[in-house]
This record gives sequence, C-alpha cells and structure tokens, in this order.
Amino acid sequence: MQNQHIEALKKIVGDEHVLTSVEDLHCYSYDATPGFSHMPNAVVKPATTEEVSKVLALANAEKIPVYTRGSGTNLSAGTVPTKGGIVLLMTRMNQLIEIDLENLVAVAEPGLVVADLNKAIETHGLIYPPDPGTVTTATLGGTVSENAGGLRGLKYGVSKHYVMGLEVVLANGQVMNVGGKNVKDVAGYDMTKLFTGSEGTLGVITKIIVKLVPAPEAKKSMMAIFKNLDNAGNSIAAIIAAKIIPATLEIMDNPTIRTVEDYAKVGLPVDAEAVLLIEVDGIPEVVEKEAAKVLEVLKTNKADEIKMAKDAAERDKIWAARRAALPALAKLRPTTYVEDATVPRNKVPDMIRAVNEIAKKYNVTIGTFGHAGDGNMHPTIVCDIRDEEEMSRVYKAMDEIFGTAIKLGGTLSGEHGIGLGKLKYMEDQFGPVAMEAMRNIKRALDPNLILNPGKLVGEC
Amino acid sequence: MQNQHIEALKKIVGDEHVLTSVEDLHCYSYDATPGFSHMPNAVVKPATTEEVSKVLALANAEKIPVYTRGSGTNLSAGTVPTKGGIVLLMTRMNQLIEIDLENLVAVAEPGLVVADLNKAIETHGLIYPPDPGTVTTATLGGTVSENAGGLRGLKYGVSKHYVMGLEVVLANGQVMNVGGKNVKDVAGYDMTKLFTGSEGTLGVITKIIVKLVPAPEAKKSMMAIFKNLDNAGNSIAAIIAAKIIPATLEIMDNPTIRTVEDYAKVGLPVDAEAVLLIEVDGIPEVVEKEAAKVLEVLKTNKADEIKMAKDAAERDKIWAARRAALPALAKLRPTTYVEDATVPRNKVPDMIRAVNEIAKKYNVTIGTFGHAGDGNMHPTIVCDIRDEEEMSRVYKAMDEIFGTAIKLGGTLSGEHGIGLGKLKYMEDQFGPVAMEAMRNIKRALDPNLILNPGKLVGEC
Repeated sequence: MQNQHIEALKKIVGDEHVLTSVEDLHCYSYDATPGFSHMPNAVVKPATTEEVSKVLALANAEKIPVYTRGSGTNLSAGTVPTKGGIVLLMTRMNQLIEIDLENLVAVAEPGLVVADLNKAIETHGLIYPPDPGTVTTATLGGTVSENAGGLRGLKYGVSKHYVMGLEVVLANGQVMNVGGKNVKDVAGYDMTKLFTGSEGTLGVITKIIVKLVPAPEAKKSMMAIFKNLDNAGNSIAAIIAAKIIPATLEIMDNPTIRTVEDYAKVGLPVDAEAVLLIEVDGIPEVVEKEAAKVLEVLKTNKADEIKMAKDAAERDKIWAARRAALPALAKLRPTTYVEDATVPRNKVPDMIRAVNEIAKKYNVTIGTFGHAGDGNMHPTIVCDIRDEEEMSRVYKAMDEIFGTAIKLGGTLSGEHGIGLGKLKYMEDQFGPVAMEAMRNIKRALDPNLILNPGKLVGEC
Repeated sequence: MQNQHIEALKKIVGDEHVLTSVEDLHCYSYDATPGFSHMPNAVVKPATTEEVSKVLALANAEKIPVYTRGSGTNLSAGTVPTKGGIVLLMTRMNQLIEIDLENLVAVAEPGLVVADLNKAIETHGLIYPPDPGTVTTATLGGTVSENAGGLRGLKYGVSKHYVMGLEVVLANGQVMNVGGKNVKDVAGYDMTKLFTGSEGTLGVITKIIVKLVPAPEAKKSMMAIFKNLDNAGNSIAAIIAAKIIPATLEIMDNPTIRTVEDYAKVGLPVDAEAVLLIEVDGIPEVVEKEAAKVLEVLKTNKADEIKMAKDAAERDKIWAARRAALPALAKLRPTTYVEDATVPRNKVPDMIRAVNEIAKKYNVTIGTFGHAGDGNMHPTIVCDIRDEEEMSRVYKAMDEIFGTAIKLGGTLSGEHGIGLGKLKYMEDQFGPVAMEAMRNIKRALDPNLILNPGKLVGEC
C-alpha cells in the first residue's frame, strides 16, 4: 500500500477514521486465535454503506487486501490480516435500525454487539438465539460472518438459521440486497445463506435482517454425573430418541471435571467420567413434562447422580460449573486452543474417547466439554506456545482430532468457522471437487481476490 | 443432438432407459405450468450416481442442455426443456437409503416420492414437514430443487430448512458431497443451501440427507369467518404478536369463498370477505393453551363467526374447505395459474386488496387463498389460454401482482420457484447487481451453460 492509498482512504471516511500508527496497527494484527498475527497497513472505520462501497472500489482497483472485522473474538484466525492491506473495522456501523414486531424481525448494522440486540428486544419478550461465549463483545456482523452458535444451538441452531436478509457490498464496490422480511422466500439462489458464514471472503455485510423468536416462558436445568462415559453417551442418544430437544445439552469429560473442580470447588466428583448439564425450555407445562422425561431417561441409562435445580439459585450453580470449564482449563497453561470439531450426535462418546487417547499419545493436556446434544465438542488444548517441542506435539494432536472428527462423519466446525486455523484440513472434509467448486464461487464473486484472501477456501 | 449422442447415452444407462419416440418426448415436453412446452431430443433415466456423472460429462463435452426432472409437478416451468437436449429423469433413483433414528435424519435418492418418505418414517413417530399439494407424486429431488413448501410452512418452513447434506454431480460430471448428518456444521460456504432451490441450474442432486422431526402429539383446528378483510388481517398479525406460531394459518378471500361454496357446499357465507383456517400442533397441553389464546385473539379482532373443531371429523371438514380452493377455482375455466407471490405477513391484507383491484381492472377472475401466516399467497388466475385477448389481460394482471408483491417488500416465490414463469420479474426483485452476482455463480459452476439453461437467473 502506498501513501496515496492512505490519503484516498482518508478522503472517503475522514482522517480520524484511518489508523496507521504502529500501536494501532498492532492492535488489529491478531484476533482471539493463538499463533496467528500479521500487521495491516491501515485500519479503516467506515460509517456508511456508501463509504464501504468506496473503500472496496479503491481496494479492488488497486488490488489491496481487505479484512472485515468486528470485535475480533473469533477462534479460527478469520480476521488476521495475513497479507497486509486494510482492516475494515465495522464497529462504527452499530445501529439497531428497526425492531419489527409484526414480522418478528430486527434490522441492524453489522457493528451492533449481539448482547445489545438482545437487550433491546428483551422488553418485547423476544430473543435472538445465537449466543456465543463472547456475546457481550462480539458483533452481529462478526457472528453472522463466522456463523456463530452457542449453548442453545441444539434447539435453536446457529446464526445462519436466523439471518433472513443481507445488504452486501461486493468486491468491486457494488451494493446488493438479498433476502428480506419474508418468512418464506425461495426466489433465486440462496445468497443470504451463501454470504452468511463466508467469513468476509465474498463481500462485506453492511446490513442484516434477523429473525427473532419468543423468549421461552420457563426453563428447567439439571445435572447428571456418570462414572461411565458410555452411559452418558447413551443418555444423550436416548433423550433425542425420546423426541425431546433440550435447549441445552452439555457434556464435560473427566479432565475438564477435574480442572473445574480444582478451580471452582463446585462439588463435582473428580472420578466421574462425564457430567451432563441439561436445560429444557418453553411453555411451563411442556418444561415440566420434558424435565420428567429426561430424568427418567437419565435413570434408565444409569446416571450415578442427578441434581435437578429447584430454583434460580440452583440453576445458576449448575451453569456456573459449565461456564467455569473454559477459564479453568485456560488457567492451567499460558496458551489455550478451543477447537470445535463436531460429529453426528451418536458419535459423541467415540469422539471424547478418541480425544482422550490422542491426549495420552502426544502427552498434551486436553479437556473436552461442549454441546453434546448437537455433537459440537470443544476439545480444548492448553499448552505454551513458546515451547517448540511441546507445540510440535500439540499440532500433531490437533491434526488427529480433526482427522477423527472427519472419519466419524463429522465436520471441522460447528460454530467457530475455518479461517486459517483449520484451512489445512478442509480438503480432507470436502474433497478436491467440492473445494474447487467453492474456489470457483470465490473467484466468481471476488476476481481480484482482495477479500480476506487465503482464508476459508485457501489460495485461489 | 446427433445420433451418436443417443448411442453414447444408451451405452451409459442401457437402451431401454433412453426414450426418443415422439410420444415419449411429448410427455416430457411440459410440466404442471400452463403455457410452456418444448420437445427434448431424448429422455434419459439413470440408475446410479455414476451414470449421472457419465451423462453429464458427455453433455458437457458436447454442450447438450440437460434438464433434471422428477415428477414434473412444478408450477414455474422449471423442468420444461426449452432448448431441446436431454431430460434427465431421476425417478429410477428412488431408494430410501437410511433412516437414522439416533441422529433424526434420513438419506434418500432424489427420485423418492415425498409421501413414501413420510410413510416410511411414520411408524417411528417422525415427519418430514415439507408438504406441497402434490406430496403424493412429487419427488424429494424435485421438491428440494424447487424449495417446495406447503401448508405447514409457517411453523415448519420449506425444504431448505430440512436439507442437511447433498451428493451433487457437477456440470462436468465430477461428484461432490457437501453437508452431512451434523446438526451444527458451518465449515466452508453453505453449498447445501446454494444447491437447494437452485432448480437444476448448478448441478444434479443424486443423494439427499434430510432432517426429520417428531410428529406433533396433538392438533387443534379452527375456522374464523370475517365480513371485513381488515379484521382478518389484524387477527393474523395479532396471533403472531401473541407469540403463537400455528402450524397452519390459511386465508381464503371472497372470490375463493364464493367459488368453494358453489363447488363444495360446505356452508361458507358467500358475503364474507375472508376466512381464516388455523391449526396449532404440538404437545396436548400446549395445543389447548394456544388454541384458547388464538380464540381470544380472533374474538378481540372481531371475527364474525368461529368454529372450533371438536373431533377429527370436524377437523377434516375445515380442511376440506381449504383443500377445495384450488380444484374449485380450477373448475371454473380451462386454464389455471397458481402463483405464489409472497409478502411480509403484516402486508397480507394490502396484498389481497391489491389483487382484487387488479382482477377488476383487467376483468380477470382471480381467487386468492394461501398461507396467510407466512405471507405466502396463492393468487390463482383462471382463464382460457386459447383466448389471446383474455390472455393479454391475464399477463398484465400477473405483471401487476408480482410488481405489487415486490413493492410491498415481498418476494416472487414463497415455494414454487422461479423457473421460466417468473424469470422476467427477477431483476425487479433483486436489481442488476444481485442478478449479476447470481449469474457469476452460475457461470462459475456451469461454464458451458448446459444445466437447465436460461432458467432462474436467465441467459448468462
């Protein structure tokens, strides 16, 4: 990038919205993923779709890479500016444009923080379900671009299940609108879904129409402790087979249980092979009925201990244990990799067992917790990125974890995206034909390869 | 197409599976859409993915158009072989490959009839929700390619909400697998959604993984009669605002009511401006609660008469009235156009009123019924396609109907697709930028433009 480009960018968004100092650039050289960083040449903060359009037209003409970014909380190095160029910071475009109660949709700019959206609709008895752990800082645009999920994914799905329409600035600066407020809309290719989860590689999202859903009237939480992992696995399968879809159905494995107990002293038995944490929600009558049914399934499948939360305080205690999982594991060592290898839900015990064997094989510390009900595991590797020898073992363990997920019919990502972090495994999951088809789409929509180049589908 | 091509096709699928007689070709020259037909050169019936792959490799090399077809029930001329070439008839590939009860998914070939899928999973207490009117003849592949919906769309969505994975043969004959059995899967571009609803323009679907859901334990149906259309419209909005999502929330307007009553004598008041037909489903306790709430909403919004079905016989009577709508209208005149212009649900009364005005303006007969809850209207024009003067008025009326839907923030299709029937309105809805983006995708995946050429996104 040359000085004249910086000057041109300043003319578009205003001097104060183009950052070029080393300190500023450093702040945007990395995201929440360990091990990836690269300095951009400029951080540009547009305020309008028109400004985004002008920035892209310039970048496209001059072949300058552009990395769209929200709060940078993603876990797959999706926003790291690996080839220099422009970090396009969307946080100034943070307006909640409309809450449409008749159609149960909201219209917002991408920089809106997800928690702020939920705060604004709470008084109307509505929720926007995707709730990644970073919900208080993550932006709507970032979560939509990474297809973020969260604890409620089993019942409520991930971001793509809520995005109804988008305004997108294409690589050449042209603006298009796809989708809308229609509950049913099958006209044309599903461009809304194509751009959702495309990690900034196909266009810049400048407006988002999302579906809202009624907040559940009641919730009921419980915890089940298993000395035998298979009984936990059977319970998961049996709950689903009983046609109950809990809002949340989480698992923590033995390494996680021990670490959480050591960290938070919540009374977990350290010899348990697995703990399940379950919440059903909905209309009070249904919640009672489903909770009773889940209880029965857990007993039938030999849960060694079951705690049903009697009130909000007990409910909070159950979820405090689950919420302690990541901080407890992260406290063990300087570096934390939270992965999201996902398998069909009947393969959850196989996956957990394989991860524990991989941990032993490479002598690395891995705690596995996560969304058992939807097969979305979070094998979490704690290590020290400065220790080369250890890291060589860590990387081998990662390779085997993702290889195992794919072998079990799983996927590289349940909710974190691919970015750079998991790029090298993509062909193992998709094969060369699907990879080439995806690259063809990338080239068709971004012929100069300026948008988050080298990510998700790799070099084109 | 030359003789050598026919011979090559026979070598791939066997002599008896290549049809070339004029009688046979005539049968595949049209589909359920009035006004479109063209003779193909051959009808080819593959039995395996490998055969499909070989047929496409040949067609691609020789630049022969290929129109993938199931039962041909579509209403947007999506399968009419308008440029000659090969009709690829998928009805031999009709196996239900797997019912996976642990993961609540089914795997099937595209030629499987949707009703047969539902019959096979019924004993397990499961349903595959998309239920177009043609469910007993339509194939899974056809409904997935056209993104078919049905009466339960309000609560259960359309086909794309159930497709989890696909095997697709690309234009060049290469085979790819995308998606799978994972409840959460955000790896790569959402190719599964891109191909779902792509109307055979991007590839040939040879295997489909669909999500199944538990059948509702209970249902409750009711009918509400309104002398004033606005009260019906307000009721629709108020039901949704009360955070109830009925499985079905249908409307019939006055012309439809009069026609149905004349045809079926079900006791509808012919001076009513609108009838709403509503069904809530789910767990018995919830159904009772929601039905009571709907009743209250209907009363508050001045329904002139409400009939709540007390038993299955009364329920059947209510839905018989709705099911009579299309045959009753179709009986009036030789030609029937069932359109699916869709609007945000709060615009339903505006849309119905506009359609009635358009009918008067052009002196054509239009009955509007359809899925009020999700805004998916079916303005149904009955006419005589042999009457040129009348048809010129009919076409003008259609133009205005779709123009009005777009003006109201709606979409050209809620569940029937675009095909050729609505192609000319596409740019009005999407604008030139999105149209070009879609054409870029088409060209990227089908560079020789052999797959259902000229449809959905037009000439490329």
